[in-house]
Amino acid sequence: MIHEVASITIDPARAAEFEAAVARARPYFAAAKGFVSFSLKRVIENPACYQLVVGWESVEAHMVDFRASPGFQEWRALAGPFFVEPPSVMHLQTVISQLSRLSLP
Amino acid sequence: MIHEVASITIDPARAAEFEAAVARARPYFAAAKGFVSFSLKRVIENPACYQLVVGWESVEAHMVDFRASPGFQEWRALAGPFFVEPPSVMHLQTVISQLSRLSLP
Repeated sequence: MIHEVASITIDPARAAEFEAAVARARPYFAAAKGFVSFSLKRVIENPACYQLVVGWESVEAHMVDFRASPGFQEWRALAGPFFVEPPSVMHLQTVISQLSRLSLP
Repeated sequence: MIHEVASITIDPARAAEFEAAVARARPYFAAAKGFVSFSLKRVIENPACYQLVVGWESVEAHMVDFRASPGFQEWRALAGPFFVEPPSVMHLQTVISQLSRLSLP
């Protein structure tokens, strides 16, 4: 399992509208082959900036299967009009993880 | 609850040593006031780059309490020698979250 992280910049005056559009797009991710988890996070120091963080079973599930699917077109139709520049995308592999104070290895 | 995201760049030839140092530093985070979760993630597209993602009860738990604590000094003593440039740090507030295909709102 890996995480896609897309860094998205919008006009912060349209934040509520953008967040509503992402909420409407969420089911298209959740229905995708290889989907694991979904979150939208806002950068506290710069409220024009968000990170879309999506867990996928593999990079290919995101970059091949999802990007070629109608769900990706729906996502871009909903959220794309808010982007003030093309999002940058990377994929992260977890190396070390502790989910709470209690989950010591 | 918020997430600290520190973007860290190292010499990828020293990745195993760096990851071991972060594993040794993890308990200093886990023991800190306001600690919630800890993870180290590696950027698949650029193996010199990592993200340290730490959940805290508040930005202040990280920036005030942890940064003034001996635990922060231990972390910097262990991991700092691997940094090839100063890490950049931001804090994220989760706006929308779905942890699995099953956790529909």
